[in-house]
Amino acid sequence: MPKDSSAHNRPVVILVRPQMGENIGAVARAMSNFGLKELRLAAPRDGWPNPKALEMAAGAESIIESAKIFSDFKAAMADVQLAYATTARSRDMEKRVVEPNIAMQEIASQAPEVRVALVFGPERSGLENEEVTWCDTLITIPTAPENSSLNLAQSMVILGYEWWRQEGGGVINRELTESAPREEWEGLFGQLEGYLDTVEYFRVPEKKPLMWQNLQNMLLRAQLNSQEMRTLRGMFRALREPRR
Amino acid sequence: MPKDSSAHNRPVVILVRPQMGENIGAVARAMSNFGLKELRLAAPRDGWPNPKALEMAAGAESIIESAKIFSDFKAAMADVQLAYATTARSRDMEKRVVEPNIAMQEIASQAPEVRVALVFGPERSGLENEEVTWCDTLITIPTAPENSSLNLAQSMVILGYEWWRQEGGGVINRELTESAPREEWEGLFGQLEGYLDTVEYFRVPEKKPLMWQNLQNMLLRAQLNSQEMRTLRGMFRALREPRR
Repeated sequence: MPKDSSAHNRPVVILVRPQMGENIGAVARAMSNFGLKELRLAAPRDGWPNPKALEMAAGAESIIESAKIFSDFKAAMADVQLAYATTARSRDMEKRVVEPNIAMQEIASQAPEVRVALVFGPERSGLENEEVTWCDTLITIPTAPENSSLNLAQSMVILGYEWWRQEGGGVINRELTESAPREEWEGLFGQLEGYLDTVEYFRVPEKKPLMWQNLQNMLLRAQLNSQEMRTLRGMFRALREPRR
Repeated sequence: MPKDSSAHNRPVVILVRPQMGENIGAVARAMSNFGLKELRLAAPRDGWPNPKALEMAAGAESIIESAKIFSDFKAAMADVQLAYATTARSRDMEKRVVEPNIAMQEIASQAPEVRVALVFGPERSGLENEEVTWCDTLITIPTAPENSSLNLAQSMVILGYEWWRQEGGGVINRELTESAPREEWEGLFGQLEGYLDTVEYFRVPEKKPLMWQNLQNMLLRAQLNSQEMRTLRGMFRALREPRR
């Protein structure tokens, strides 16, 4: 479960001159997948509201409906204290460039009242150099050199994912139920060895120690829990002592 | 730059009963963004080839063209040695569940010749429980509880991104050029203090030490490199000693 998110910084997302409504909707969807809420649009090409944005916003309609519209980039940035620009091309500029995970660590460590923005340029051309200058740090998503073109929503998915992990939402690993203690394994192996001896499975006595060791290793590797061990013992029993 | 990728395990991607060609194409595009190459389709709903897949594969046409088609799930999995199933719903099953980064660490640590698969179910319904059973480990992408629906391509983007980072492709952070050494700062501060004294900037002498300290702190915080420092000194000089 995520920690109380009010204790963390939640960046706003600023789309600068976004072109297609579908992409705005897909960005909103990705934001809602990862707990981001405030979307700003600076001079959207096709005006606002845009029904195509709402269509693509599966589950994120409220983000689209509450999106704030600004006449231009500077207006959208007016209250921003710390800005991260997402850029694909590397810019010949004296600016820090960081990967998404580093950026999101930095953002999560900001106090919640600091206004942090994730800034995305128009689909085709990206941000102007002047706009990049206006941001503090660049985020570049590492991609394979043979195809480095990520669309707006894909980029948002990755930044959102990394932010959500910083947010504490990432803790979902579940390891197996605890393995049964060794005394239960002894019970299982005792039963099994008895059956195998009865059916003369180990035909050559001097080979038995190694064969038996291998069998035990195989079963132990499965890290059975107590319930699974009972199931296995029941299965062996049924094989050897079928009910009439 | 990524390490030599031949030294790492590169998983194959298996789409089980994929429904829309567009989604198959978008998955291929995400694969190529992150250096994955082999796509398998188990019983694609609309047959194969599918022109819509090619349309959406921007930059990943070769992945679509070389995709291998199988009649069903088991056939696509026949040579797979280690399988990770991507699931949104948690399954009531004794299986490990891990986050994408953990899964990709495990995969990257496998020898290159081990056949590892990332398995995705159909868009609408996901994998059947029998198919999940056939996989070794489940991957769940952490999402915000209010909207946990990621589409096929978004999931592939996140897994690809994490794989590429394990692959060594993630190292693109660039910190600023080294700051100038302190002796250059002394030169700058000496020049500036001289100018400020000349113009009687520090009107109240007893306030000068603190004001001057604050000014030095501000400038030092910018971590100027030697080139930038020369620029700044030139600027101060121009302000005080304009050319005629």
